[in-house]
Amino acid sequence: MSLKVIAFDADDTLFVNETYFLETEEKFCELMSDYLSHKSISQELFRIEIKNLPIYGYGIKAYILSMIEAAMTISDNTIPVEVVAKIIQYGKELLEKPIVLLDGVEETLEALHGKYKLVVATKGDLLDQRRKLHNSGLGKYFHHIEVMSDKQEQDYLDLIKRLEIQPSEFFMIGNSLKSDVLPVLGIGGYAAHVPFHTTWAHEKIDHEVKHVNFSAFEKITEVISLL
Amino acid sequence: MSLKVIAFDADDTLFVNETYFLETEEKFCELMSDYLSHKSISQELFRIEIKNLPIYGYGIKAYILSMIEAAMTISDNTIPVEVVAKIIQYGKELLEKPIVLLDGVEETLEALHGKYKLVVATKGDLLDQRRKLHNSGLGKYFHHIEVMSDKQEQDYLDLIKRLEIQPSEFFMIGNSLKSDVLPVLGIGGYAAHVPFHTTWAHEKIDHEVKHVNFSAFEKITEVISLL
Repeated sequence: MSLKVIAFDADDTLFVNETYFLETEEKFCELMSDYLSHKSISQELFRIEIKNLPIYGYGIKAYILSMIEAAMTISDNTIPVEVVAKIIQYGKELLEKPIVLLDGVEETLEALHGKYKLVVATKGDLLDQRRKLHNSGLGKYFHHIEVMSDKQEQDYLDLIKRLEIQPSEFFMIGNSLKSDVLPVLGIGGYAAHVPFHTTWAHEKIDHEVKHVNFSAFEKITEVISLL
Repeated sequence: MSLKVIAFDADDTLFVNETYFLETEEKFCELMSDYLSHKSISQELFRIEIKNLPIYGYGIKAYILSMIEAAMTISDNTIPVEVVAKIIQYGKELLEKPIVLLDGVEETLEALHGKYKLVVATKGDLLDQRRKLHNSGLGKYFHHIEVMSDKQEQDYLDLIKRLEIQPSEFFMIGNSLKSDVLPVLGIGGYAAHVPFHTTWAHEKIDHEVKHVNFSAFEKITEVISLL
């Protein structure tokens, strides 16, 4: 390997994220529990999120809008508008959650900083991701943030072009096999998977990854000895 | 000048944008016209947009959420939820507006392409800005898009760092003196203003710009003879 850039996914790789979405979803299900079971509400919300992905993209604002839309379809437009106000409030609370760093993150960045160009490569709202990186105190380790509209092969090719490097000079670390690993291997880069205990349904894959450029870590610190 | 990068603002510099927002605002005022005058509705919407800027940032999703919130405050939470559905529909329509290129844009890009690294530097939703650039057919002229969470001096300093150039190697062209010109001059870059017939209240300034690195254009094509 002759690496130039190491990219880290942000949510659930550097700091806690999915946990907060699940908490919010739980509150949303509670709010709508007169109409359907929690399970059916979650399914309807997920259906609407996926339907809206091409137009809204990822991130919390998209999530708030999809919750509002789900509340209307679930109640057949009978919810009082106060419920919408409550959903917006939940969304704003989600945007202001504290940043909780994951184990070994700071140690890893400290070790790699100065040896490679470190970037954050993440989906979601730009402003929200910048806020989180700033509040996490990790900003000093990174050259910059790359907010991607999606994490498919073409998005990584665009990223590589923007960074003016070759795919073989790029190493991606993240908690999603689907978004952080497979597309990077697909374009000829290196990737490592660090699992987080919860994964959003949309990010799940059902097969094992085997590839010469792939590393499966249990802890993010394992990248230090690999490189 | 020894320029390396020429950055173009997107909305109302490359293609029509504010016109569509004004159309949507007009429809929103119509929807709420039982409660207040158009002028008061616009003022309340603007107040809520500015209040939400630090948390939501720029872009259409933020605008939809602020319209919903404005509808609730304007009606004192008495609007039926169908009005919320209508607002979401207006928002989705706004996300799917056709791309209308402004005069001279293609000619300018054609002339500068290959001589400088051309980038788009814009606020707003990443996915939406990528969609617009793709649908505009202008994608081939640009090295990449830089979606910025804001356009203040620090944001331009971050951009310059990401591009690995000096401020004196950077030229910005846009329709907003406040966002595209003043902060760029402030950090030592070059900037040109190309007016669009409508400017969002938040982007207006009330003084003239005089600076050795500044050019006031009537048409975007004037940059070709300047460089």
